[in-house]
Formats: sequence, C-alpha cells, structure tokens
Amino acid sequence: MDGGSARGSKTVKARLPKGLRDIGECEAYAQNRMLRALSEVCTSWGFSALETPILEYADALGKFLPDEERPNAGVFSLRDDDEQWLALRYDLTAPLARYVAENYDSLPKPFRRYQHGPVFRNEKPDPGRFRQFMQFDADIVGAPVPLADAELCALAAKCMDTLGLKEKYSLHISNRKLLDGLLESIGLNKNESGFAEKRLRVLRSIDKMERLGARAVTDLLGMGRKDKSGDYTPGAGLDQKAIEKVLALVEGHIDFPSLEAIMGETASGKEGIEQLHEMIDLMKAFGVNEDVIELDPTVVRGLDYYTGPIFEIKMGASDSRLTRFGSVGGGGRYDDLVTRFKGIEIPAAGFSIGISRLYTVLEAMKESSAIEGETLDVVILLLDSTDRTEAVRITRELREANIRAEVYLGSSGMRAQMRYADRRSAKLAIIQGEQERKRNEITIRNLVLGKELSASIKDSSQWKEGGEAQRSVARERLLEEVSKTLASQK
Amino acid sequence: MDGGSARGSKTVKARLPKGLRDIGECEAYAQNRMLRALSEVCTSWGFSALETPILEYADALGKFLPDEERPNAGVFSLRDDDEQWLALRYDLTAPLARYVAENYDSLPKPFRRYQHGPVFRNEKPDPGRFRQFMQFDADIVGAPVPLADAELCALAAKCMDTLGLKEKYSLHISNRKLLDGLLESIGLNKNESGFAEKRLRVLRSIDKMERLGARAVTDLLGMGRKDKSGDYTPGAGLDQKAIEKVLALVEGHIDFPSLEAIMGETASGKEGIEQLHEMIDLMKAFGVNEDVIELDPTVVRGLDYYTGPIFEIKMGASDSRLTRFGSVGGGGRYDDLVTRFKGIEIPAAGFSIGISRLYTVLEAMKESSAIEGETLDVVILLLDSTDRTEAVRITRELREANIRAEVYLGSSGMRAQMRYADRRSAKLAIIQGEQERKRNEITIRNLVLGKELSASIKDSSQWKEGGEAQRSVARERLLEEVSKTLASQK
Repeated sequence: MDGGSARGSKTVKARLPKGLRDIGECEAYAQNRMLRALSEVCTSWGFSALETPILEYADALGKFLPDEERPNAGVFSLRDDDEQWLALRYDLTAPLARYVAENYDSLPKPFRRYQHGPVFRNEKPDPGRFRQFMQFDADIVGAPVPLADAELCALAAKCMDTLGLKEKYSLHISNRKLLDGLLESIGLNKNESGFAEKRLRVLRSIDKMERLGARAVTDLLGMGRKDKSGDYTPGAGLDQKAIEKVLALVEGHIDFPSLEAIMGETASGKEGIEQLHEMIDLMKAFGVNEDVIELDPTVVRGLDYYTGPIFEIKMGASDSRLTRFGSVGGGGRYDDLVTRFKGIEIPAAGFSIGISRLYTVLEAMKESSAIEGETLDVVILLLDSTDRTEAVRITRELREANIRAEVYLGSSGMRAQMRYADRRSAKLAIIQGEQERKRNEITIRNLVLGKELSASIKDSSQWKEGGEAQRSVARERLLEEVSKTLASQK
Repeated sequence: MDGGSARGSKTVKARLPKGLRDIGECEAYAQNRMLRALSEVCTSWGFSALETPILEYADALGKFLPDEERPNAGVFSLRDDDEQWLALRYDLTAPLARYVAENYDSLPKPFRRYQHGPVFRNEKPDPGRFRQFMQFDADIVGAPVPLADAELCALAAKCMDTLGLKEKYSLHISNRKLLDGLLESIGLNKNESGFAEKRLRVLRSIDKMERLGARAVTDLLGMGRKDKSGDYTPGAGLDQKAIEKVLALVEGHIDFPSLEAIMGETASGKEGIEQLHEMIDLMKAFGVNEDVIELDPTVVRGLDYYTGPIFEIKMGASDSRLTRFGSVGGGGRYDDLVTRFKGIEIPAAGFSIGISRLYTVLEAMKESSAIEGETLDVVILLLDSTDRTEAVRITRELREANIRAEVYLGSSGMRAQMRYADRRSAKLAIIQGEQERKRNEITIRNLVLGKELSASIKDSSQWKEGGEAQRSVARERLLEEVSKTLASQK
C-alpha cells in the first residue's frame, strides 16, 4: 500500500514489461477456479500441497549453471547481495528436486505432492507466447512401481474430467523403452561411436512427426532436410528399410499387434510393451475411460530426460483428428530427479498441466462453460435522493441470500450508472428514490429484458417508462422479487 | 519437467536461498483455503479478479526509480535484454496503479478488484521475516465517496469472519484528517518553514506509541530520545501543552466526545470526525458488529501516503488488551494512486491482508481450526500377495464416495507401510492379502484406535492379532464399514 507516490511532476509511462501480460477478470476467475478444482482432486487423491519460493539459487535449479558471467540463457537471473546467482524458477519440477533433496529424511516416502504457481522463461516474446505462465504439477517421488505411473495418468484424466472436459481430450501414452527397442531393431548399437548423436537425431525427427508430417521426417531420418527458409538440418543417416520401420511406428494410429511386430525380440521393446499393458490395465481400474487412452509412439517429450512411461494430454477426442489444439500438459517417469544433489537415484514421476495454455485452448474451442468468468447479479443504483444506509442494507440482505450484489460507489448520474451496470453485465438494477422510499417500495429493473430499451434511456424520468422490464414492489418483498426476476432469466 | 539432469558427477548442494522458505503441506493447504475463501467473499461482493505479472518495470512500480546503477534498495531487480530495469513487485498496489493507468478507458468505473499473490522485499532476512510473502488485496478505484471506505472496512471484517475469526480481531480505524486537525490545534502552521519535517516527526512519534509507550513518545514529541543502544532520535520540539494534547489523542482508548474536545474548532478535525461517524454508521449497515470497531488515532500507516480514512486489522478482541499479536493487514484511502502516470487525481482506497503473517499469528494463537491442513482417510496397503488391480479398485470406490484414499506406492514391507500410514496421519488402513482375497474379504484396521498397538508391530503375522482395532469384513461391505469406522473416530 506504500510506494508509488509522485516524485516531482514528471509522469511515468504506464506499460507492461515485454512478453508479460495482465490476466483480466474472466481469465483470472477461470484460472483460480481451475486451480481450486485441481487442488481438490489432488487432495482427495492423497497428494499434499507444497509451495516453494519463486526464486531459487541458479545452480540448484540446474540446467543453467552459472558458468558464464550472466547465466541468463532461458531464465531470469539476478545476483544476491552475497554475489550468488538467483533465478526465477522455469518450472515446478526443478524446485521439487531441490526440496526433496533438502528434506529427504523428514518426508513421507513415497512423497506425493501437488503445486501450482507461475513459472518464468526468459525467451524472445512471441504473440501468444508469454514469459510468465501458470502451471499445475503433481508428482510422486520414491515410487518405483508402474502403479505410480498409472495413478498419475489416471489423475491427469480425473483433472481434465473435473474441469468439465470429459470426452474433449485424450491421453497419448508411450514409453521411452519403445524408442530404445526401435533403435535396437534397426541395428543401432549402443556401443558404437556416434550412437548418442544418431539416437538424438532419430528422437528429434519423431518429435517433429505431428508438426511436419511423414515426408519431412523421412528426410530427417535419412540424408537431412532443407526447410522453406533454406535452413539445412542434417539427417540421422538411416537406410531406407530402417526409415520405413521408424515410420511404421509413428505414422498414424497404432495397436499392440503392430507394435509387437515392430519391436520384435528386442529386450527394451518387449519391456516397454509390457509396461504399457500393465499401465493401461491399472488406469482402467483407476476409472479412466478406455476411449481416452491412445497408444502414441510419437510422444517423445523432452528428449533426454525421461526414463520410462511418458504421456501427453491433448485436446480433441482420440478417435477424431481434432488434436489440432495440441498438448496442454503431460509428464512421465524421470528417475534421476534428485541424483544431481544426492548422488543416489530416487525414482520419480509426475505431470504438469499448463493452465495458461489450457485457457487459451479452451477459448479457441469456445468451451464457454469451462472459461466463463464470475457474474454480477444486482447493482443498487444511487440517486441523489437515495438513502445511503438503506441502499447498503438492501445490498447486505441480498448478499446474505447468496446473491452477488453491490451498491454503485461513484458520484455520477443515472446514465453513467446504467452504463456501469451494463459494463458489469449485471442482471438487474434496484432503485429507491424519494418517491419509492415514501411508499416503502423499491423499483426492480430487469436489465436482461430491458437491455435494448436501456440503450435509449436519456434521463431518469424515462425510468418510469421501463414497461415490462421494470416494476415497483414492496420493500419487504426484496428477496422474493429479486430471486423471481433472476430465475426468469435462466 | 525438463532440466535438472546431471552434469558430470559433481553433486550440487540442495539449499533454499537466504530469507526464503518452503511452505509445507499444512500451511500451503491452509493458505490456499484462506485465499479461496477470501476470493469467494470478494466475488460475492462484486469485486473482479485480476492477476498482474510478478515482474514490472522498476520505474512503473515507483518509489525505486532507476536513478542509481542498480536500483536494488528494497526490491529485487534485474536488467532485461534491452537494458530496461525489471523488478519483482513489492506489493499489489503499485502494479494496480500501473494497470489502471494503462487500461483506464476500458475499465468499469468505479473499478473494484481483488488480487492475491506473492510479493517480494529485498531486505536483510530476519528470523520470522521472509523475502517472499503472500498478500491478499481488495481495492476500489474511482469512488470518491465515504461509502467506498465503509464498504472496504466491512469487506475486511467479512473476510476475517469468513476465515472463522469472528470475535478474534478488531478494526482500528482513524482518519488522516484527525492528524491534520491535531497539528492545527497545537498551533502548527502549514505555511511556516519546517512544518513538513515537524509534521513527519509527530506522525512518526504517534506511530511508535504502541511499540514504545507514552514515555518514549513524550521524549520524541519534545526534545528527542536516546534509546538503549545509545542512538539518538531528534524530537519534534513541541512544548509541554502540545505534547499533552497529542498524548490525550493517542494514549489509551478514546471516544467521540474526547475526540471532539481535542479537535476543537479545527476544520480538518471536524471533517475527520464527521467522516468517521459516517463510516461507522455505514459499516454497521454493511453488517459489521459494533464491538469490532475501535476508534484508534494511533493508527498512522505509511506516514506520507494516505489522504483520508485509514484502518488496521488487529488480532485480539477490542475490549481486551489481547492485541499483542499486532496487525495482520489494513488499508485506507490514497487518492494519488494513478497521478504519477496520468497527471490527474483518481480517487482510490483499498486494503491488504498479509496471508503469511496471518498464518503465523494464527499458529501463535493456536487457532487450530483456522490453520489445520488436509487429512488422509485411508491407505490401502500392498502386500506381495495383494492384487494390484483390486487394490486400485478399492481406492477408486472410496474416492468416488468422497473418502480420501490412496494405495501405497512404494516397494517396502509392512513395517515401512505402517510407518508411512502413521506419517500421513491416515485414519485407517485396508489390507487384502491372499487369504482375504480367497474369502472375498478385506481387513480394516482402525489406526486411531490401534495407534499404541501398531508401534509394537514387528511383522505381518501380528496383524492378525490386531484385536478390537482390526476386523475382516466382506469385500462388498467396503464403503459401509469404512464409513462406520471413520464416523466412530469423530
């Protein structure tokens, strides 16, 4: 409440920093409602709340070690008084790793936690791409069993169902071991030199399947590809037969028999298929609708990070091609979470939902029930002759009956007050001028019904001509008449 | 979900940055519950949600203008790629000013908004004083009327009531005009040289009343004061009669007749008293319990900032001296909010509740109902012989009946699972080994009843001797028996 007072007479330009945005009433309300609903699901599933700070030591966040003068590639960083580098967190997983390592002995094991909050990326701003966005994460640390992977997938599905999006999304699941099996089956040998780079190129090519299509991926798997701008990406150097095998895996829908044929007798492939079978069975036991689950080996996620099951939440039913809205979240198993701190491997799995991203997608899908903001029911107008205390009492009585009401707080005239009620999308207005008070009445104006009429109102005398949209009733019938009018608008 | 992978074999020390903290399950849950409850109150009172970014341009936040090489006095700041200074917001009011100035034309007027989120102070960390904390703010911009001040006070009271703190707090209200009247009545003249400094010294002295007491304030109002450490604070230089007048205002409880006597015929004093009367009447009409309201001219808040009514929310009933827990929030009217951007005066008033501070106070007051965390009802244990799918089905059936349940996800034995259930404060455990499954039964263990017993359990065979705390029931009676056991623990 302090600060902000004028210094001299020079005015400052009011502006948002580059790549950041204000979240106005509709989205802020919808976002809070989503976070609340997801938190409640997680609580009822036995996950504990956690809030880590927004600033962390840069080296504890990892990935962006301070080996340069200013480690700002991708993160916002600053120096503390003692010269240590601090950074704004870029996700909620790296801070979880720090938290688990720091508090390992006192945590229940397994440790199930959910967390939500803003994360930051110091990237070039783009239209629709912001440098701060809201994430919701759930993770299980210390559970090495496929049951944990299945529960996280089921929780992700439950989260989407809870947001009212049943049948609007699908869970695309895969397993990193399938990719290992694929590489094995096309003769890539772990011990050969250049294996790591070749593997990365194959993974990157697969990752581009959805965006670029089979033809581009064929080039990327083979000799390389020149894109429209003329930029050349070197290829993985696979032969035609190997390319066909990769394409068979990632082109279009796939079922278990085809998957088994592609994986053949490779150890990783067989293990991956077995884990997928187990996961799907357990997911169904957790209550996931089978139609939601889609086997999808094009899901790669993060390339070098995951060690087992991986999944993405995509908008659009799995049996349609409505996935053009893309991924709104995902996750998987990453067993090296705490290794960099503790030197020992601690199994972990989790997922994120991008709340800001989800809102954008729901807006594009016109899912109005999921994104609608709060509404105002009643504005109590203030004429010069209105008794302030009585106006407040009316407001209070309505609020106590769970009707969203406010008394107009400006000092403007009737037209401005009507514009205000309209701007707030209020459903009805209440007025009590001198005449009404003398007769112990109030006037109720149905703003939905009177919308067209109100546009042409020029002065307060016209209020009396409100016709059907407006009526005077006894003061003591306030709640009854307001409820009736609101009900008639449903 | 990406990042954090090991780089080389050197491990990193997991540690929180100086002055920051993790908020664990209990407080994180309580905090989210408080924010949700306050948001719901604000929504029903017609306030709109807003979320501004955590980073702002330093000059737009104000107070900390970048006139030095690194403007880090009190704020965390960093330079963007284009060399502009960004800062982490230090409150939610300065960003509101920027938002209102930037979007003035498109906002409803008056503009009623609430917002919550972390704010940051780059100050020397102290025990119990952190560099990131959670605030909840509600403000009304563009309403010049005392009705707005009254509504904000009433909303603050409603917020506290909603948190279950009825009769545990009081609203200490004052008005900056009383202080102007006081200065006038003791003969301080606005047009005399040195007035501004003298005024500031008087205000600072009054602000110290609660902390230092009457004797120290007498010195500060007079010739100055040397504190225990030997530091000298120069005084305001008032004479004995003036000092007595100031003390009469700020020493102990005061009522309107005494206030009128002190203010005498001063214009500001009379105006201040009139506004207080009007505010109190309207607050009562809004539903504020009269016992909660305390006239308190020691409330100064922010010294140079406020222009009219001011108030603080203090823990402890107003008629007791239980205010030792101090202020958990407050606010008032500050009509120069947007002036520094727009060059015109836009009336505004609002208040903040320090959510982190409130939690600390409630902990100290042992208000367990307000701060208690989530609880877990049931852990489904996993023996080697437990069928995973069946365990998941049991979990799911319980969750669908709104019972918080989870299946144990580790790979440890019975003792570790019992320790886990205990660590999570689970109320009962369910077990289905081979024997139970053959008989189509489950075993329910009442962990509250069996707490003492379970401490001595050494292996799974002892489970069968659980006595009263444990019984086997038919599988289809799952919900019935679990509900009965949970109910018996209430």
